[in-house]
Amino acid sequence: MNKEAIYHRPKNNFAYAYDEKTLHIRIRTKKDDVNSIQLIHGDPYIWENNEWVFETKHMKKSGSDSLFDYWFAEVQPPFKRLRYGFIISSNEETSTLTEKGFFAETPKDSGFYFCFPFLNKRDVFQAPKWVKDTVWYQIFPERFANGDETINPAGTLPWASAEPTPTNFFGGDFEGIIQHINHLVELGVTGIYFTPIFKAHSNHKYDTIDYMEIDPQFGDKETFKRLVDTCHEHGIKVMLDAVFNHSGYYWPPFQDVLKNGEESKYKDWFHIWDFPVVTEPKPNYDAFAFVSSMPKLNTENKEVKEYLLDVGRYWVKEFNIDGWRLDVANEVDHQFWREFRTAVKEVKEDTYILGEIWHDSMPWLQGDQFDAVMNYPFTNATLDYIAKGTTDAEGFANAISNVLHSYPANVNEVSFNLLGSHDTPRILTICNDDKNKLKLLFLFQLSFIGAPCIYYGDEISMTGDQDPGCRKCMPWDKELHDIDMFEHVKKLIHLRKTYKAFGNHGDIHFIEANNDTNHVMYTKMTDEEIIYFIINNSEQEITVSLPEQLTDSVIEDLWTGKEFAIEANELQATLVPYQFHILRTVK
Amino acid sequence: MNKEAIYHRPKNNFAYAYDEKTLHIRIRTKKDDVNSIQLIHGDPYIWENNEWVFETKHMKKSGSDSLFDYWFAEVQPPFKRLRYGFIISSNEETSTLTEKGFFAETPKDSGFYFCFPFLNKRDVFQAPKWVKDTVWYQIFPERFANGDETINPAGTLPWASAEPTPTNFFGGDFEGIIQHINHLVELGVTGIYFTPIFKAHSNHKYDTIDYMEIDPQFGDKETFKRLVDTCHEHGIKVMLDAVFNHSGYYWPPFQDVLKNGEESKYKDWFHIWDFPVVTEPKPNYDAFAFVSSMPKLNTENKEVKEYLLDVGRYWVKEFNIDGWRLDVANEVDHQFWREFRTAVKEVKEDTYILGEIWHDSMPWLQGDQFDAVMNYPFTNATLDYIAKGTTDAEGFANAISNVLHSYPANVNEVSFNLLGSHDTPRILTICNDDKNKLKLLFLFQLSFIGAPCIYYGDEISMTGDQDPGCRKCMPWDKELHDIDMFEHVKKLIHLRKTYKAFGNHGDIHFIEANNDTNHVMYTKMTDEEIIYFIINNSEQEITVSLPEQLTDSVIEDLWTGKEFAIEANELQATLVPYQFHILRTVK
Repeated sequence: MNKEAIYHRPKNNFAYAYDEKTLHIRIRTKKDDVNSIQLIHGDPYIWENNEWVFETKHMKKSGSDSLFDYWFAEVQPPFKRLRYGFIISSNEETSTLTEKGFFAETPKDSGFYFCFPFLNKRDVFQAPKWVKDTVWYQIFPERFANGDETINPAGTLPWASAEPTPTNFFGGDFEGIIQHINHLVELGVTGIYFTPIFKAHSNHKYDTIDYMEIDPQFGDKETFKRLVDTCHEHGIKVMLDAVFNHSGYYWPPFQDVLKNGEESKYKDWFHIWDFPVVTEPKPNYDAFAFVSSMPKLNTENKEVKEYLLDVGRYWVKEFNIDGWRLDVANEVDHQFWREFRTAVKEVKEDTYILGEIWHDSMPWLQGDQFDAVMNYPFTNATLDYIAKGTTDAEGFANAISNVLHSYPANVNEVSFNLLGSHDTPRILTICNDDKNKLKLLFLFQLSFIGAPCIYYGDEISMTGDQDPGCRKCMPWDKELHDIDMFEHVKKLIHLRKTYKAFGNHGDIHFIEANNDTNHVMYTKMTDEEIIYFIINNSEQEITVSLPEQLTDSVIEDLWTGKEFAIEANELQATLVPYQFHILRTVK
Repeated sequence: MNKEAIYHRPKNNFAYAYDEKTLHIRIRTKKDDVNSIQLIHGDPYIWENNEWVFETKHMKKSGSDSLFDYWFAEVQPPFKRLRYGFIISSNEETSTLTEKGFFAETPKDSGFYFCFPFLNKRDVFQAPKWVKDTVWYQIFPERFANGDETINPAGTLPWASAEPTPTNFFGGDFEGIIQHINHLVELGVTGIYFTPIFKAHSNHKYDTIDYMEIDPQFGDKETFKRLVDTCHEHGIKVMLDAVFNHSGYYWPPFQDVLKNGEESKYKDWFHIWDFPVVTEPKPNYDAFAFVSSMPKLNTENKEVKEYLLDVGRYWVKEFNIDGWRLDVANEVDHQFWREFRTAVKEVKEDTYILGEIWHDSMPWLQGDQFDAVMNYPFTNATLDYIAKGTTDAEGFANAISNVLHSYPANVNEVSFNLLGSHDTPRILTICNDDKNKLKLLFLFQLSFIGAPCIYYGDEISMTGDQDPGCRKCMPWDKELHDIDMFEHVKKLIHLRKTYKAFGNHGDIHFIEANNDTNHVMYTKMTDEEIIYFIINNSEQEITVSLPEQLTDSVIEDLWTGKEFAIEANELQATLVPYQFHILRTVK
């Protein structure tokens, strides 16, 4: 047994409270090294005859990645306390893993074991319930629709009359979004994430001048209120972008520091290295990256903190927004986010808090800070396999399994699963304009665990390179829409909403990842139904064997809506290049 | 290379901020599997020619336990941001480990790497500076000294006239401690941890009746103030015991719930399962273990929380105490402790917060909750080797190395290192009354990283079994003191204070752990000096080889105060059974 490969440590993705009653326990072992694992568990204080009283429970293998197998069991400790360990069996030996290490004989003293000391409700990771069923849509307001030309900023170009540049304007605004809300309703979207809308000079508005004002190019507060209300009337949640890591250059406190230097009453609102403050050739203060126009805010300063917490509360309280997406969230101190969470949730308990973090985010997802992060590991795994073809089927299944095992299940269920954004090339462009691939991308995204997000226009096959190319104007001439793609996405969203197992309420399992054919087959499952997804991610026609358990089942083809006829009574299916099947059986 | 054995994940003992400028990076590999590791590191935003700009740094092997080697490097990122990875070489191959896994070719994109996004001051684990140089002494007030017989509780027995029972009283009080403060001063103690002193019926006072009152058997608030002042005048810090997980049966709010049931305004102050409340045969409410007289407090309830935070603030503010030891700290919600830390540190920034946790405590030691925990893994490792003889020299070195690598270095430096307490048998009793072993225990404890704590009377060779045996009356007839042991401990404390490397400012390294002789040799080292500790933990006389680097060094024997003469010009030393050497050289 490769004991060194075995890893478990409580209070993260390996042991966590799934809800107020349930603990999830996971352990990882070297791939294909271990035959079975029994979870030993019991209340730390129940002893008989000087021996700890414990039960055992069979752990199931919940998945594998390239190096490891992952094992899972769930427990509902009657007194909310748990000591536990693992009896691990390989071909050669059986050994008991406790917090104090491996033992040939299972220790009889609860003090040896791993500890989940008490399942306190307050510490349970709890994201708003509505997020589990949300399909997000990201809008970059400058480029979605221009509905009120009277508020166009100076120099606004006619809609879609030019390629986007880092500095040009086309006058997108709130009125435009209100006018086109039906596009979103028809698609089935139930949440909009807006990139920043506060007063700022740039077209992207990440260089905030005033956190308490709407940028006039988008409208005024009355219009914004109408936009939020319109969204809510249509069952659509609203999430705004909070840029709290840094301010913009023209934010008055920073201007004051530039002007008054050490005499400025705002000098401690930033991280100034020395005075006078200079911006060239390099800023002598902490900034986002080395961008002198984005001075990093000192979120440890009490005044700054109070100001930003007020901002967080204000837009929730006054405009009833439903979520905050936090820009460059990883570079702000953890304590600020803890206080931010408390402040915002006091105003509205089910506000969603989403951090922009591109890397492993476990330290922010312990229940005290964020509800979710932008799930770029999901993005990369999916694009590598389907869009770029740089990963094979097995690599894809491994990478997705790794994503799922990196976080607790309740974190995965509300993860923000994007394929592209204003910070990445358009996904169709990454697919080399291959729409078959784009369709598979949407299929996987919309059948996966978490809250998917569609970047505006991807659903009508917009293209574009890295910023600024990915920020083109959304066309509103229907002839410029790829209706076929729109219908594809709409249908997937509809299926996601219709079948519990399709969306966020079904467990995902890869049952085949075949490098010869480059196809994958995975299931989504509830207690009532199983949905089989088969994706032919290749240029070849392939014939795949269907699982034995489908023998004699009535199989519904969810894509055609008809019964799925097994070919020549053989348990197999043929798929043309890039075809997919979605097959459902009732348990 | 055993890749599955290699583990690293940021923001815990594997990567943490040591101070406001310094990051510590550790990684573990299978024991004796890897030859060298280079840390790759750089600012995430510094790129040249489309490639991330990074440096490499040699990692040193910082220790090993039974399964793993641990590697260490420290970095001071100029812009407080770090992406990093590891180039790992074994006999067979070299591979680069990033957050995205292993790569044969070192990736050129910072996005692949592990991330420590920003070194925010607020998130740095920072315990009070004074703790690093504190030698604690634990007093169980009922049994230390009876200085004022007029306040003896009813039924008090004459001092030391009987064996302790779970319920008898001997009248120990504050006046007694004040009268005997010189015992502590002479020993060299610089901090006292008092088990509970608040109003309660029992002799141990863990069953609080009133958190705002001193139990009258100990004195009144005036006496307590005098006690604290006396301690402070003698350079001794004062730490009290906060029993916040549960109240006592006679705490008025619980009595109110017992009496008024669902009508009680305190009904949500506890975790009552159903009404009426019953205590027999088993409590129908959450309790400490299943002890009906210790009902668990609902620390999520706002009123309870405010009350307890007030308690936390009150004794610091009014009596200037220096620390809180938190009873059953692991079963209280994390959020409560976060708020407790903020509340207490707002009153007095350098208050020490010590949690009672017997198991792995990383989730409480992230800088937002505790400064330290009671280091029972240290206790067990040390007792197993020296007192019980159930572990051999190698097992001991492995266990201690494991303890040190389980937490960040700044956590280890303030860890509360006890050998025994009111909850365990007396250490001399565990040593089977072998005072040679007791001396070695003190030697190791007082030369180790962290803040050692001596349980009252251990320094004069008191004995006793598990509670109540370990709670005997401290004798004050000097003829009953083991003066030799007292002088031994006093001398060790003096050396700890005199030589930086001896105490908390020296790195520890095991250079030999020999199972044949059962001896260990370890060094404590600063930039200026090295101290060699050699412990013969056996009944045999042994001759050990001294390290090569001692050749031609002037070696000071810190125990005799004389120059250490190397035998017959050979680099070796002979030790009689249970002898030790403490040898110092200047670098």
